[in-house]
Amino acid sequence: MTLRARLHRQLHIGSWPNGKLTGLNVFVVWVILAALLVGIVATEPAIRLPYQGEILIAEFIFGLVFLLEYAGRIFAAPEREGPGSPWQKRWRFIFSPIGLIDLVVVVVSLAPFFVANAAVLRVIRLLRIVSIMKFSRFSAAMREIGAALRERSYDLLVCATLALVLVLLGAAGLYWVEGDLQPEQFGSIPRALWWAVITLTTVGYGDAYPVTALGRLIGSAVAIGGVLLVALPTGIVAAAFSDAMQRRREAMARALEEMEGAGLE
Amino acid sequence: MTLRARLHRQLHIGSWPNGKLTGLNVFVVWVILAALLVGIVATEPAIRLPYQGEILIAEFIFGLVFLLEYAGRIFAAPEREGPGSPWQKRWRFIFSPIGLIDLVVVVVSLAPFFVANAAVLRVIRLLRIVSIMKFSRFSAAMREIGAALRERSYDLLVCATLALVLVLLGAAGLYWVEGDLQPEQFGSIPRALWWAVITLTTVGYGDAYPVTALGRLIGSAVAIGGVLLVALPTGIVAAAFSDAMQRRREAMARALEEMEGAGLE
Amino acid sequence: MTLRARLHRQLHIGSWPNGKLTGLNVFVVWVILAALLVGIVATEPAIRLPYQGEILIAEFIFGLVFLLEYAGRIFAAPEREGPGSPWQKRWRFIFSPIGLIDLVVVVVSLAPFFVANAAVLRVIRLLRIVSIMKFSRFSAAMREIGAALRERSYDLLVCATLALVLVLLGAAGLYWVEGDLQPEQFGSIPRALWWAVITLTTVGYGDAYPVTALGRLIGSAVAIGGVLLVALPTGIVAAAFSDAMQRRREAMARALEEMEGAGLE
Amino acid sequence: MTLRARLHRQLHIGSWPNGKLTGLNVFVVWVILAALLVGIVATEPAIRLPYQGEILIAEFIFGLVFLLEYAGRIFAAPEREGPGSPWQKRWRFIFSPIGLIDLVVVVVSLAPFFVANAAVLRVIRLLRIVSIMKFSRFSAAMREIGAALRERSYDLLVCATLALVLVLLGAAGLYWVEGDLQPEQFGSIPRALWWAVITLTTVGYGDAYPVTALGRLIGSAVAIGGVLLVALPTGIVAAAFSDAMQRRREAMARALEEMEGAGLE
Repeated sequence: MTLRARLHRQLHIGSWPNGKLTGLNVFVVWVILAALLVGIVATEPAIRLPYQGEILIAEFIFGLVFLLEYAGRIFAAPEREGPGSPWQKRWRFIFSPIGLIDLVVVVVSLAPFFVANAAVLRVIRLLRIVSIMKFSRFSAAMREIGAALRERSYDLLVCATLALVLVLLGAAGLYWVEGDLQPEQFGSIPRALWWAVITLTTVGYGDAYPVTALGRLIGSAVAIGGVLLVALPTGIVAAAFSDAMQRRREAMARALEEMEGAGLE
Repeated sequence: MTLRARLHRQLHIGSWPNGKLTGLNVFVVWVILAALLVGIVATEPAIRLPYQGEILIAEFIFGLVFLLEYAGRIFAAPEREGPGSPWQKRWRFIFSPIGLIDLVVVVVSLAPFFVANAAVLRVIRLLRIVSIMKFSRFSAAMREIGAALRERSYDLLVCATLALVLVLLGAAGLYWVEGDLQPEQFGSIPRALWWAVITLTTVGYGDAYPVTALGRLIGSAVAIGGVLLVALPTGIVAAAFSDAMQRRREAMARALEEMEGAGLE
Repeated sequence: MTLRARLHRQLHIGSWPNGKLTGLNVFVVWVILAALLVGIVATEPAIRLPYQGEILIAEFIFGLVFLLEYAGRIFAAPEREGPGSPWQKRWRFIFSPIGLIDLVVVVVSLAPFFVANAAVLRVIRLLRIVSIMKFSRFSAAMREIGAALRERSYDLLVCATLALVLVLLGAAGLYWVEGDLQPEQFGSIPRALWWAVITLTTVGYGDAYPVTALGRLIGSAVAIGGVLLVALPTGIVAAAFSDAMQRRREAMARALEEMEGAGLE
Repeated sequence: MTLRARLHRQLHIGSWPNGKLTGLNVFVVWVILAALLVGIVATEPAIRLPYQGEILIAEFIFGLVFLLEYAGRIFAAPEREGPGSPWQKRWRFIFSPIGLIDLVVVVVSLAPFFVANAAVLRVIRLLRIVSIMKFSRFSAAMREIGAALRERSYDLLVCATLALVLVLLGAAGLYWVEGDLQPEQFGSIPRALWWAVITLTTVGYGDAYPVTALGRLIGSAVAIGGVLLVALPTGIVAAAFSDAMQRRREAMARALEEMEGAGLE
């Protein structure tokens, strides 16, 4: 087998749920996670300032690994299935969404070594977290879940509409009842909407809450409605999720059977 | 086909889940959403004051569209199924709940151009959000869900009773334990009830919370009871919801089969 | 039919889910609810003081109704099924749990007219909410749910143990990390336990929260663990609940069938 | 039967779900719970200082019971199934995880009587709560649940990844929008992550919350995403849990059948 073919096999994402992630892929996953961690931690001044040197070195190494991985993927692209000359396949990879993400991550990772402007650097540093999108390579399962949720999109839309009506009525009610009393919190429907969403999702920060008897009655209704409304998407999403997983397992079992059947003959 | 028949077909809400919403209906849906958005945003002084002119123009356009839609529905009413002379059908639409909602929305949308009193205008502006009720035209699915929940109304009543008892006992307990300590929060059972509802629904604003050991024991019991009690309606509502959707799909499949069967013969 | 038999039939709680609540029972249910409401509202000084007279009259009427109902139940007790002389049956009712609750409610409702001591009155007023226990007459459904939950008591015990371990570890962790920093909130494990319970149940008042990086890591673990742990009882309770309701309906259908079978022969 | 055999039977944890916990085991469970309670309560200065003597005596008694239990288990170890000489079995128990936990609990319980250093004592006092790990003897059911969750580990990993992405995007968004406005809360991504986790789990302490319109939009998205994301593990964990219990009951029923079958022959 040529070096290119071996590299392609190493970089290719196999059917991971079966645990067939290659050694190189595992390494890249760890580097992505490490780059994310360093990128996040580096936004904290209490850490960035004393460890400026170490962070720079780590970012350079991550950038280098991503650059090498990107180059390797371009080099090995001709091994991909499908028609076309080697260079056509390479260009196709470069301009595919996943290829563009890889390029952006390389550029963002290595930019601090070529750009000096502090304001630009701050934005670039923030863009670092796009490296999490490199994980979209492993998104087969998510695509299935997405498809399952889309099948139930009508049900979820009904839920969303009910939630919207409840949130709107609650916000309009508190704007009406306490708009003059707490203008900062309920002085307009958009302001009251923030309170209504935070109550309906049962988060309840406590930065805004009704203080009159009527306002508390409306607030109680929104809180209780929130508990009931949480039940609807929970049921739908949970059913959709377990459906998707079920189908996935069945498809896998069928594929396994066929492989064994082929082996027996 | 006459213009009236074509207009009726355009305005009629078909079986939307199949994606048969006509172009005119889609347009009206977008206008309702836009009118709602403008109506909500216009209550915020920071936006209303600088953009007073733009909001007036937008509201006039929305009112005009709703007026034309209302006139169109009255004009096309004779095309509806059922007995009666054209004018009988028109009056029946005008006095139907959905017809009255349409009328109120038209009046409320165009009122600012005929009324000058500021206090009256503020109420009218708030009434704007009734335009969300125009969506009740699409409520076939919700009616089914409502029927499914009604079937389980006995179970939900048992849940509600358990929740009521827990809330009452918790409120009475904190009134007893901390009524003298925090009179503003727990000085009477109605005041303590606000705390109990906000705790049971796990919202937890933090405007009222027990500070004594015994009060915290009662508070913990209400919080844990809340988690367990949330489980009951979640299970019931989710089951009812998935039932309703299941029946809906079966009914649709049967209707489709019959249509195909009729086509074959 | 004698007056006593007719009274017994009126007071007896039939199979309510079928909607067989008699007129007298419906009246008593409303009086219980009204007495509860007045008892709750009367604890609020802002209402009690201006409406003292009206509240007294209402309480006297409720007490009278409960007294008449209690006398009626004693009078009609001999109509109950089972062996024993009329007076034996009466004493059995008087000393049954439900009979004692009825007596306590009568005494508590009429006490303000015979007792003058303010401190005693305050306790009696609080005891008013025991009238909610009169509803235990309708507890057939709850008894079934209780039985269903008892069947799964082992599963729920495992959940409770997991929750206890998580709460304890979280509280011990914050006592260790922030005990010296926030002695009021985390100065001892019992104090930290309050925070841990309020976090695990996702209530989150905000009266206590970690402020150090390590404390926040522990707090995040408790919050995430809380979301996962809520899932366990939700699943168990929901399944137990839907089981109980299923069995209830089947039993009812069987009883109906037998009645019809008996009618046909 | 020898004393050793009888002691082993008393100390051995039978199939507890069937209610076959021996009298000695029940006693040890209560002592563990009491030791835990005293250990927790003793960290509260308001209780520790006035009751110092009573706590010391209680701790001595608990330590003695644990010492006797530990000695008994070592003494009875040769009765365990499996090959090896009596002392080999004893050493195997002493160095097994559960044996080491028992030893640590004995040492930690009796240490205050041999150590005088206050700082060391404080750590030892905190270690007292490891006595909860003595319960791991009863962990047969938890091991099954753990196995069931491991089977679905791929699904749970997908959930965790989705949650991670949502939390990261939310935190990065608020760092970007309100980092300069509220540096204490959102001045770095690690700080914003604390807010994001507490919002996604719907705890919502209220120590950090967005104040700008854009920040509130992001906050609403995280809160709503949290409600939807809670639905996924709820569905998965609940299904896994009910599966595990189902299998457990079936295995028990089969074992019972076999025992009866063996008895009949």
